[in-house]
Amino acid sequence: MAHDEGTTYAAAGVDIDAGNRAVALMKDAVSATHGPEVLAGIGAFGGLFSLGTLEMREPVLAASTDGVGTKVRLATRYGRLASVGMDLVNHCIDDILVQGARPLFFLDYVASAKLTPEDVAAVVGGMAEACRAAGCALLGGETAEMPGVYAAGEIDVVGTIVGVVDRGQIVDGRRIRPGDAVIGIASHSPHTNGYSLIRHVLGDRDLTVHEPALGAAPVDLLLRPHRSYLPEVGALRAAGVDIKGMAHITGGGLIENPPRVLPPETALRLDRTQWPVPPLFTWLAELGGIADAEMHRVFNMGLGLLVVLPEDQVERALDALGADAWHVGDIVPHHGRPTVFFSPDLQE
Amino acid sequence: MAHDEGTTYAAAGVDIDAGNRAVALMKDAVSATHGPEVLAGIGAFGGLFSLGTLEMREPVLAASTDGVGTKVRLATRYGRLASVGMDLVNHCIDDILVQGARPLFFLDYVASAKLTPEDVAAVVGGMAEACRAAGCALLGGETAEMPGVYAAGEIDVVGTIVGVVDRGQIVDGRRIRPGDAVIGIASHSPHTNGYSLIRHVLGDRDLTVHEPALGAAPVDLLLRPHRSYLPEVGALRAAGVDIKGMAHITGGGLIENPPRVLPPETALRLDRTQWPVPPLFTWLAELGGIADAEMHRVFNMGLGLLVVLPEDQVERALDALGADAWHVGDIVPHHGRPTVFFSPDLQE
Repeated sequence: MAHDEGTTYAAAGVDIDAGNRAVALMKDAVSATHGPEVLAGIGAFGGLFSLGTLEMREPVLAASTDGVGTKVRLATRYGRLASVGMDLVNHCIDDILVQGARPLFFLDYVASAKLTPEDVAAVVGGMAEACRAAGCALLGGETAEMPGVYAAGEIDVVGTIVGVVDRGQIVDGRRIRPGDAVIGIASHSPHTNGYSLIRHVLGDRDLTVHEPALGAAPVDLLLRPHRSYLPEVGALRAAGVDIKGMAHITGGGLIENPPRVLPPETALRLDRTQWPVPPLFTWLAELGGIADAEMHRVFNMGLGLLVVLPEDQVERALDALGADAWHVGDIVPHHGRPTVFFSPDLQE
Repeated sequence: MAHDEGTTYAAAGVDIDAGNRAVALMKDAVSATHGPEVLAGIGAFGGLFSLGTLEMREPVLAASTDGVGTKVRLATRYGRLASVGMDLVNHCIDDILVQGARPLFFLDYVASAKLTPEDVAAVVGGMAEACRAAGCALLGGETAEMPGVYAAGEIDVVGTIVGVVDRGQIVDGRRIRPGDAVIGIASHSPHTNGYSLIRHVLGDRDLTVHEPALGAAPVDLLLRPHRSYLPEVGALRAAGVDIKGMAHITGGGLIENPPRVLPPETALRLDRTQWPVPPLFTWLAELGGIADAEMHRVFNMGLGLLVVLPEDQVERALDALGADAWHVGDIVPHHGRPTVFFSPDLQE
């Protein structure tokens, strides 16, 4: 809230009635994310969040900054900016969730050559909705108009999340051993990854037209927001499941993300017959002539989160998760860098 | 570190020798900001910062997100991107410093249509340098290439800072009373504000040419980084000064920022004869035909931080601060919204 180029949320709507209404609604939505931990100051230059109520032996903050990538271009084109607000919050939640952290607060940055209050309100409203669902405060934000830096009509959205985990509860994959099982939990869409390829494949096609192969208009599936796995991980914890490691399936897909949490001398054997690949991915692969291997490197292929746990807790975990979760693989011994073996093999 | 469009710092330099060297240097610079509080994980999806050593009754986190605004365009044009990295960190430090918080960690986002490893290394290197000077960890970052969203050759840089303050030590201006004194501390440049106006006034002028009125080339003065006031506030605290309120002079200048920390029924009377306005501002005002009032609304006019303190502590405070700090004003009773009275008056 500091630059001459920046405007506060409130100021963004000056003199424009529709804008004013949108901004008023947005401010209410943001306030609704504020619990007693959020301290209100006089003309505060930054947001204040009290850790007073934390009961932890050694609190460790987990933090991550991210953008939504080029999915925002699709959302802009179809006038659905609220969805990218949700995308960004949930993506960030999952990035720290896989370390065992729960979200405390989120800050945003929305920039463009020229911002309309309606657009800002849509993005921030989506963020506020996702924050509220996660019990996360939307603590602050900045908007910037930078003509010359941004292309006309385009927008970028950046967010930062801060969460907390007790040091003894950090999930880092260190205890993963051969014989452990891996559960996959369904994604809601490509989430926030692969949209450059998607836009390349789909070109100027009208995505609002119902597509029989999908049973829906592509745009509705493509812009479904990133799923937050906070409730699912909470359910696993409540059931007493020993979560040894988690992988958030983002850029790099099912090929590059799992190795990030595997310890040396291990690999993940993923059984592709154990979960249903959503028709959207099959449709994109056919339209674009994209090979299996490339698809699995770019997309989540229907699994947004992998959880590594002791084999004898699989049943308990699946009971806790309900539908949309499957026992998709196992940890195996492996000489060399941690990797993923697919069964059946991926076609190059 | 998550999108298909994103690249990690390391990956940004692949196949380019100069890039690789720049990235290697940058990684060393980032690591140098990491104390024992920064926990290294296996392929971590987010950064981890331990609060284990905090000794506070009720720790309150202070957080702020910001960009550097259009100063980045000037820095890009003159190939001085490291300075905007420093700008951004110091700007964020000051935004939470005025609430009494000290920085813990910083995260960054650097985006463009096409990023070169040298540019990323320059920006992040500047951030790392400023972080290290402040004892602040550069905990994480994200780079994004978004062709179509950013204009060719342009870059945006966004940062988020998280700091901490004990609840009882929050500085919020609440105890400010008529009769209190106000000290101003020198700025190093326009900091990160007013650059749209500066670029408008200076047009295509070659800013590397020595300017007799300034005793320097304008670009050298214009791109001097935002000053961090962390050492100065530390010196005031060490001297036992009772800091009642602080205003970071950013967008809105000396007119709009001080009221943000003043309680009801008070105003700031600012004596313009008490500090030297840097020649850069006089030069810009003459070149652009910009009135006094506008100058004071857009620029910091040579004062980057105002500190409100009891009148009988002024001498002690000035002794602690050394040069570049002046007793510039006083708090006076005032009916109506808090405001700033200038003496002599500003010319419209």
